[in-house]
Parts: sequence; C-alpha cells; structure tokens
Amino acid sequence: MSSTSVSSFAASLLVPSKNSSLSNHKRRLIQCSLGTVIEPKATAASEPLLLNAVRGQDVERPPVWLMRQAGRYMKSYQIICEKYPSFRERSENVDLVVEISLQPWNVFQPDGVILFSDILTPLSGMNIPFDIVKGKGPIIFDPIATAADVDQVREFSPEESVPYVGKALTILHKEVDNKAAVLGFVGAPFTLASYVVEGGSSKNFTKIKRLAFSQPKVLHSLLQKFATSMTKYIRYQADNGAQAVQIFDSWATELSPVDFEEFSLPYLKQIVDAVKQTHPDLPLILYASGSGGLLERLALTSVDVVSLDWTVDMAEGRRRLGHDIAVQGNVDPGVLFGSKEFITNRIHDTVRKAGKGKHILNLGHGIKVGTPEENVAHFFEQHLCLHLYLYLYPPLPPPQQPRPSPPPHQKAIFLSQPSLSPFLFSFKRSIQTGPGNAEKMCLHAVNSLSEAHKVVSDSELPVFVLDDVGYTTDSRSIPCVQLMNRVESEISVMLTDDLVEDG
Amino acid sequence: MSSTSVSSFAASLLVPSKNSSLSNHKRRLIQCSLGTVIEPKATAASEPLLLNAVRGQDVERPPVWLMRQAGRYMKSYQIICEKYPSFRERSENVDLVVEISLQPWNVFQPDGVILFSDILTPLSGMNIPFDIVKGKGPIIFDPIATAADVDQVREFSPEESVPYVGKALTILHKEVDNKAAVLGFVGAPFTLASYVVEGGSSKNFTKIKRLAFSQPKVLHSLLQKFATSMTKYIRYQADNGAQAVQIFDSWATELSPVDFEEFSLPYLKQIVDAVKQTHPDLPLILYASGSGGLLERLALTSVDVVSLDWTVDMAEGRRRLGHDIAVQGNVDPGVLFGSKEFITNRIHDTVRKAGKGKHILNLGHGIKVGTPEENVAHFFEQHLCLHLYLYLYPPLPPPQQPRPSPPPHQKAIFLSQPSLSPFLFSFKRSIQTGPGNAEKMCLHAVNSLSEAHKVVSDSELPVFVLDDVGYTTDSRSIPCVQLMNRVESEISVMLTDDLVEDG
Repeated sequence: MSSTSVSSFAASLLVPSKNSSLSNHKRRLIQCSLGTVIEPKATAASEPLLLNAVRGQDVERPPVWLMRQAGRYMKSYQIICEKYPSFRERSENVDLVVEISLQPWNVFQPDGVILFSDILTPLSGMNIPFDIVKGKGPIIFDPIATAADVDQVREFSPEESVPYVGKALTILHKEVDNKAAVLGFVGAPFTLASYVVEGGSSKNFTKIKRLAFSQPKVLHSLLQKFATSMTKYIRYQADNGAQAVQIFDSWATELSPVDFEEFSLPYLKQIVDAVKQTHPDLPLILYASGSGGLLERLALTSVDVVSLDWTVDMAEGRRRLGHDIAVQGNVDPGVLFGSKEFITNRIHDTVRKAGKGKHILNLGHGIKVGTPEENVAHFFEQHLCLHLYLYLYPPLPPPQQPRPSPPPHQKAIFLSQPSLSPFLFSFKRSIQTGPGNAEKMCLHAVNSLSEAHKVVSDSELPVFVLDDVGYTTDSRSIPCVQLMNRVESEISVMLTDDLVEDG
Repeated sequence: MSSTSVSSFAASLLVPSKNSSLSNHKRRLIQCSLGTVIEPKATAASEPLLLNAVRGQDVERPPVWLMRQAGRYMKSYQIICEKYPSFRERSENVDLVVEISLQPWNVFQPDGVILFSDILTPLSGMNIPFDIVKGKGPIIFDPIATAADVDQVREFSPEESVPYVGKALTILHKEVDNKAAVLGFVGAPFTLASYVVEGGSSKNFTKIKRLAFSQPKVLHSLLQKFATSMTKYIRYQADNGAQAVQIFDSWATELSPVDFEEFSLPYLKQIVDAVKQTHPDLPLILYASGSGGLLERLALTSVDVVSLDWTVDMAEGRRRLGHDIAVQGNVDPGVLFGSKEFITNRIHDTVRKAGKGKHILNLGHGIKVGTPEENVAHFFEQHLCLHLYLYLYPPLPPPQQPRPSPPPHQKAIFLSQPSLSPFLFSFKRSIQTGPGNAEKMCLHAVNSLSEAHKVVSDSELPVFVLDDVGYTTDSRSIPCVQLMNRVESEISVMLTDDLVEDG
C-alpha cells in the first residue's frame, strides 16, 4: 500500500524509522501493518472520546473498551481474589471496587472504565437476599414464585443500600479525569426477574416462562418494581460520576420477539424515557446477547447505543438499526484466543463494517476467563493503529459532500468487483422491474481503486460501491431496494474491502 | 366469532352439538375455540402431509412434529431408561430405537416420526470414541487438537458402522406407513467438530475457536471429513426409509457470520449439493439454534426447509428467508410450560405469521425435560383445530386469485388498524418520496373485519393489510419498500390479528 494515501494526520503519528530519539521515549512504539505509531499520551480532554463518538462527533478513531474488562482473565485480579475470596466483598467495598475497576485502565488505557460490580448488586437492598458463589454463579436464597413474594420486594434506594457504588464512581471519575469515560451499569427488569424467579442462572428458563405464560400479572408487577428501581439506580450512578450507563438485558433474548414486546421492551422504554427526562445528555447503552432476531426492537427503546453481540454481522446490524443510533461491539470474545494476526484483521473488519462514527469498538460479549492477557494487550494496541487505518479509508467522496445532481436519465454509478457480477445481474434485473428504472443505473465492475477513481472522476454522478457484505447479507430483495431508495433520496458511498486494499 | 365465515370444509369437521352418535366414536372429540372437531383417523396417503407441505402443495393444515419428541419428557421413555440406563444402548439397539421412536407416534400421531438417535452416533465409526453420560452429556475420550489427530479420523461407512440405523428406519417406514413422514437426521460438520475438539458440550467454545482462529487448515481438514461422511450418512438414511433428513448445526451459531461463512456454510452447501445429486426429491431441513443473525446465510445452503428457533419472529423469518423456502418452527418450548389457553394462542399466532403453505409447525428448539405431557397432548390436539382456523382465514382473496388490475392512478388499498396511524403516516410519506407514488395508494384505517370487507367490496383494487408485525419489525424503511415492491409486482393480502379476531 502506497504511503501517499496516508493523510497528514495519520502520517504525523508514523515514527520515522531512523528517529532514535523517539524510541527512548517512555511511551511505547506500536507496530501496525502500515508502520509504527507512538502510543498516544492519555491527556484529559473536555469530554472523553467515547462520549464524543456516541454523540456523532468527528473522532480520530473509534473508542474502545471491553465488557468484563476488569476480572478473572487478569492475573492482578486473581491475586485480589486470593486475598478477598468473596465476590460480594470485592464488589461492595469501595477501595476494592476502585482498585479492581482501575486494573485494566492502568494496563491498557481503554476509553471506557466500567465500574466493577454486578447487575445483582441492588437485590439485597430490594429485600431479595442473594450471593455469588465461585463456580456456581448467583444464588437467590428465596426465589420469587407468587404475587405474595413480589409484594415483599422493596423498591430500591441506592443512597441507602449501595452507598459504596456512588463513592466508587466518584473516585473513579476523579482518577480517570476524563481521559476515558467512567461507565456504570444496571440489569434490565426482565433479566433481573429471570434471576430471582429461577433462583440463579438458568439453562431453560422454565420457571420464569411458566410464570410469564400462565400468570403474567404477577411477573408484570415484579418487572414494574425493577423498572422503577433501575431508573433510580441509573440516575444515582450518573449523579455520582458515571458518564454513560449500560443496561444489560441478557436473558430477554430467551424470549420470542412477541414475548419480548410484552415482558421486556415496555420496561426498557420506560427506564430510558424516565432517565432522559432528568439526564438528557447521559448516553444509555443497551446490551442483549443473542439479539439477532430482535435488533429493530432494541432500537425502539430509544437508547443511544445498541451493543451488538458477535453473532450479528456489524454491517448488517448497522443497517437493521439505522444510522441514527450508535453501535458498540462486536468482536467475538473467542477471537482473543486466535493468532495476533487474526485479532488485528478482525478489529479492522469490524471497524470497517461499522463505518466511520458512532461506533464503540468492543467485544460482542464479556471477555472470557482464560483469555491470554497478551492478546488483550494486542487488541488494545492494534486499535490505536486505527488512527492510520481510518485515514486511509475515504478515497472516494464521503457522504457529507454530495456531488451535483445527475442528469435525469442516469441516476447513479454502481461500482462492483468483477467477482460479484452474478449479483450485479440480479441487482440490475430487480431495479429494472420498477418502471423507468432501467436507464437510471450504470454498472461498472472494477478491479482496483484506481479503476474506480477513473470511473468516478469521469462522471458527475453519485457513486455506489456494491460490497460483498451487501451481497452475502441481502442477496434477496433488500439491497436493491435500499440502494434504490438512496438513488431516489440521497447520495452516498459504500466501500468494498478489495477496493480499499488495492491502493 | 360468527360461524357464517367458516368454510364448508371446516364446517364439515364441526360436530353438531346434539349428534350423540359421533360422541360414541372411538376417535376423540377435540375442543377448539370455534367448536369441536373429531380427531381425524390416520390414514395412509400416497405421500405424508409433511412432504406435501414442504413441496408447496395445498395442504389442509400445516404438518406438525416436535424436535426431541421422543425422549425424557415422556413417562414411557423414562420407564425404558430405567431398564436400559445406557443412552448408547437405547440408541444403537434396533428394537429399542424403534420402540422409542414410536412412543410419541402412538400417543400424539405427529406428522413426522423422527428416528431416536444422536448426532454423535457416527463418531465411533469414525474412530472417535465417545459416550453420552447421564447428567453430563457427551464425552469425547480423546479430543481432537492437532493435524495428526485429524489424520486418525476415519471416513464414515454407515452400512458397516451403524447398520441398526438403517434397520430401524426401514421398520419405522413400514410401521408408520406414510401416515406420517419418517425423519432421519445428522449433525453438521462444524457442530460435530465442536464436540470432538471441545471434548463434549461447551460453554465458550474456546478450544475450537483457538483452532479456527490460529490453525484454520487443521479445522478445515476435519470439517471436510465430516462433510463427506455426513453426505454418505444422509444418503444411507434416505435409502433405508427416511423421507426427509434434518441437519443440526446448533453450534455454528456460536460463530460470527464471517466465520460461519468460512467454517460452516461451505460444508453445509457441499452436503446439500451432493445429496441433491443422488436424491433430488429428499427434503433437507436445516436447524441452527440462535440463527437470528444468520438467516439469509442459512438459505444460501439450498436446503428445502429452514427450521427457525423461537427467538426470531416467524413473519420476519419468512420475509428474511424469502417465500421460496419452507419454514419449520418456531414455538418457544417454554410455551409448553404455560397455560393451555396460552399454548393455543401461540400455535395460532405462529401459523398465522408463517402464512399458508410451506410451513411445518414445530417448536423452536427441542422439547424440554419436565414439559407436562398433557400440555404436549394439548399442543397436538390444538393443531388439529387449525383445520377450522385456516379456513376462517382468507376472507379476503388469496394471492392465487389476483384481482383485476387497478386503474393506473391508484394501485392498491392499504388497510390498517387505527392504532397504527403514526406508522401509516410515515409509510405514506416514504412511498411519496418516489415520483408519482403519492396517488398510487389509498389508506384506510379500519376497526373491524366488517369495515374491512366494506372497503374491499367497494373496490376492485388489490388490498394490503398493514399488520402490527410489519410495524414493529420494520419501522424504518423495509416494509414500505417491500410493500411498494408488491404494489408493483403482485397482488397480495396480509392480515392483522385484530382484524381476524373481530368476526
């Protein structure tokens, strides 16, 4: 790849190979596929990168953090566990919470520092005694089964029940000092209800489903208590230093969509609406593992960010969610067990598919126990290379700079790799089914970026590049109509892997 | 609901309330919400209902069977387990396989009778010793980790290694005698590879991912052995009596779509293509739990039927897969823990969303241990009521009978419930962005079926009913363009829940 296409910004990060003065610098040199970059010095900004990215501002690279980034894969955490074997002690003692939360921050400098806690932490304060037992997971001592049990559940008062959370967040905010965003989190009502009805983790969720499908009113009254309580808890976290809050609704995806609409979605929406009234600028992130069948519904909650799991293609997730909403994710945590080269490639693939802006790079699930720490370090280091990578990206005009309107007989140029010609054919045929559409398009199969440039520079038309992602995803009717919609309404550019890489 | 809308076919199944001669009949009377039907007598047909449905023929109701319908939820099976505690013995002894396979057939008369076996059954014959241990699941004694291990894997010869499978299928075919379809099944290459690399069931799949993401060639050579072997196994099952074969690829959905495309899809496609060459009429069903992010890719395998899990809405699954492919599923197995009324409603909801034809009613996953047998009986009984239900269905013209072409200035009528008017508005606006589209539509919000009838009978236009499914699913751009496509190309009808139910 020729370095002439590297922007001046990116080039300024490249370390000249013979500049030995820099190599003595305390900051590390990071080897990227395009060259070497100096590890940026973390500096306090007016706002952390993560918040700027969520708000759609122009950022130099996607911010990055990892779900469960503080925890058992780190040797330093395991040492604390030996001294303090009780999870509840580790998560309810201010000093320990702060120390554990900062462990990954000190080593990897992620753009988000999430509170070390658990979604079940509020339960004691709601009169639902529980413990988290090593090797077994959470245990609810008196699982909820009846309306009378629900009556015994108290509404949550964070100030009284979990003052250590507020104190820890305040300290974290001060320590991190806007060099990263401090993140709080809560469990979603259906997920919390699953734990307290099942008595802990579950495989089949038969107890909560029996309740939902035979005594829905009992479940609804429990869900309402959690919705009210979690609204208060999010506000409390925000008031004490959390700069964004993630809502975990892991088990809602065990529901059919029609049941999600009854037992989860309304409560999520209620929480988001209520928090937005008092904290309109607090970004809310929603994560629900296994949500491939639910994406459009997740967007209906009005959260600012949907965190995609790894079983959804990032580009397809974007399309299904719409570009107004930010996305987080979605590298398979299993990728961190692969080779370093594989990890690098997957970061780039994910970032490319997410597109520029409104993307937080993350895993598609919590990091797994046993993940090699050196691979985590590699993940964080390589994401810094995205400085270079992203600036190689837009050789074709970005969407913000619309080209002049095309002549009416020809609406757009479609570029494609030659290997996609069977798709091009069916695409053309689909477009042609609309009256008067046959002459609206102009198909070019190009082998390289330079060929593409030539086609584009010879024309005043808007340009669409049909990428292989679109092909594999939407080989039926969707890409055609989506593209057709764009022909009708806007001017836009999509890039293919191959076109970008030929230089 | 007025009985005047019941078709004569459906009405003929209704038992006149005072006809006592029928109540003495050996066949049971089944109480449906619309009346009582006589349990149909199972009669040998030239072809089982299930096969006709898959082939798109006109069937009087969707065929039904349950994944894992022979097994632990049945008392009769538990009795056999006490006598024969080894799973391998139960699944490798011809008499036991036949007896267990026929247990649900004798009680519930499903339209599919699946062989009692396991996807791991071929492993011994491939030189991969294993056992299935109660409470632990499968155990692979020498998990595969290296290229040398893969070299030791033998290609499968079903005739030599599992003759009991062929014998059992032959007996089942004879016993069931085309009153239902005898179903065989196999594991997909990636899923089998996951078991043998992980050493059994897995939570995080870190071993196979480490292999895939650092030594892909080793994994590919293992996958190829499974693909070749499973192709032979499917052919063997079909040659010995299986009338359709289901491929289980449960663990492939643990992969990101891009990895599915490398490690699962090509092998599935290879199997399907090879089997179609020798057995072009054998329906192949593909099931992969958790496939909400993969649906379009599943269709690329060229299987005849995609079995949807319960986390995807049936109507949305249909849309994403396209109407050429048959669908199976997708009732949440947890529904069978709900009230009988809830079960009935969910059957109807699923069937309605699947639409008429090319649908096999099933669960979205295997039936759970602990499911009340009386609820399973209720599920099978209620599906018989679909005779009545389906014939109440098309009060508006079905797609096969196109109405006369509308005048050019107005292409279609869109009916909607008043509650959806915000959607109607945005829908109208979207359509209007296309030139000349504003006058193509005519929007009516109606409160009842009779209102709908009036609008329709006053017009010669094709009718679209905007259902709440479409609304919740595709509130962005898709429904508009999909509907618009239909306006352009065909005449069709969709029904809403509310409209159907008002009578």
